[in-house]
Amino acid sequence: MILTGLQALVQPDRGEGLMSDKMLPSPVEIEGADAPGDALIICEHAANDFPAQYGDLGLSEDEKAAHIAWDPGALGLARGLARNLNAPLVLGTISRLIYDLNRPPHAPGAMAETSEIYRIPDNADLPVAERLRRTAGIYLPFHNAVAMMVAARLALGQRPVVITVHSFTPVWHGTPRQVEFGVIHDADDRLARAITAQDTGLMTMLNEPYSAADGVAHMLATHATPLGLANVMLELRNDLLADPAAQAAMADRLTPVLRAAITAVR
Amino acid sequence: MILTGLQALVQPDRGEGLMSDKMLPSPVEIEGADAPGDALIICEHAANDFPAQYGDLGLSEDEKAAHIAWDPGALGLARGLARNLNAPLVLGTISRLIYDLNRPPHAPGAMAETSEIYRIPDNADLPVAERLRRTAGIYLPFHNAVAMMVAARLALGQRPVVITVHSFTPVWHGTPRQVEFGVIHDADDRLARAITAQDTGLMTMLNEPYSAADGVAHMLATHATPLGLANVMLELRNDLLADPAAQAAMADRLTPVLRAAITAVR
Repeated sequence: MILTGLQALVQPDRGEGLMSDKMLPSPVEIEGADAPGDALIICEHAANDFPAQYGDLGLSEDEKAAHIAWDPGALGLARGLARNLNAPLVLGTISRLIYDLNRPPHAPGAMAETSEIYRIPDNADLPVAERLRRTAGIYLPFHNAVAMMVAARLALGQRPVVITVHSFTPVWHGTPRQVEFGVIHDADDRLARAITAQDTGLMTMLNEPYSAADGVAHMLATHATPLGLANVMLELRNDLLADPAAQAAMADRLTPVLRAAITAVR
Repeated sequence: MILTGLQALVQPDRGEGLMSDKMLPSPVEIEGADAPGDALIICEHAANDFPAQYGDLGLSEDEKAAHIAWDPGALGLARGLARNLNAPLVLGTISRLIYDLNRPPHAPGAMAETSEIYRIPDNADLPVAERLRRTAGIYLPFHNAVAMMVAARLALGQRPVVITVHSFTPVWHGTPRQVEFGVIHDADDRLARAITAQDTGLMTMLNEPYSAADGVAHMLATHATPLGLANVMLELRNDLLADPAAQAAMADRLTPVLRAAITAVR
């Protein structure tokens, strides 16, 4: 067990120490922190950036552009929803292949060695020091930012619903996916069922193309469930988010559905 | 709703912003961050300090020394357990009457207006800006430190059990309490039941003098349950922790019990 050196990194007062390495790029941005809406929007897989400090993991340009590196279209949808709902948006700025913000540090998928049919060369046999560096440099600052947004709202007397926004690939291991809109919940299914109870005009399914049992509810389980905040993970098939116009149209389509669902769980 | 100004406070990259007010005292200390044991010990109510930046809340010296302001004896016990188990200890440095680290920001008990028979004058009708300042200055840095300790262990391949250490008053609203050792669990009761299954030589009870239903499992529900880490809240009657010798003796008494319980849930 390699623990030597952790003490030196730990300066927990006011977020210094592990989180203060000025050489590492920020893994998180917050848009509209003051927006007073009833929701907090989170987009973990918004970007496919591979900052020089972490390297490109030995991937080709095509692989870095593929769905394995990010959720194509999710950021545009998330921004549209945040604008329409007048809600803050917390978004990730680094490829999920470097660190998947929706996975805890011990999960195999946090720094995945494989994704669908792709091998991620530099994630193979990752040294424990590099696992710790990515955890400290990416996972912790992002989750601290989400915790801050939630705690500040609670202190102000708000009870925001927590909505994470994702996209999925139309073809998985060669098989086309029929579902267009997946609505996934953690332990609390109220908001998810209030969404799927409505006519969305899309092929909508509860807990498809995957569910909390697949380990995809980490963000909700950490920042919403313990506080009793209603929450949901939205998954849109990425061929429906192909360009900014499609992303904006999808946001406009889903906004009244989300508004009604939020009202239903109040 | 007062949200204006939150954007200006939010600089989430690397823990700056809300967490970086250098005028506020650190609410957290970590002892033995590198200790390689199988447990993480947390003592939220270790101190009855009232830093000048927050004031004394209008309390008398007697009130500031009473059990309402902290858990007398808990820090000595927690330090003894951490030493015996070779485990890190995360401890709070500020009175729980200023902010109770084991409560989320919206809980009435986070910045309590009353505690048992005492009224906390300056916590009455607390302005929302002060609720936000205490949340940002005390709650968030402490919880970020716990999240960091847990995440770092997970990245290193450890699965620590999470143990919080508390004390309770022998007399509550005039009624003596018979229980000496309360063992409280969140959703996962494995570690708690592995403790109460043993002979501790103390009047030991599960989920007494209170339980998760009273809102006392916030720390466990936030930092252990979502990650599947076994966890327990230990509550000792504070007359059994009256001085350093008693605290050390109690740590020595409980250490083999905890060791056996940790082994049982592995």
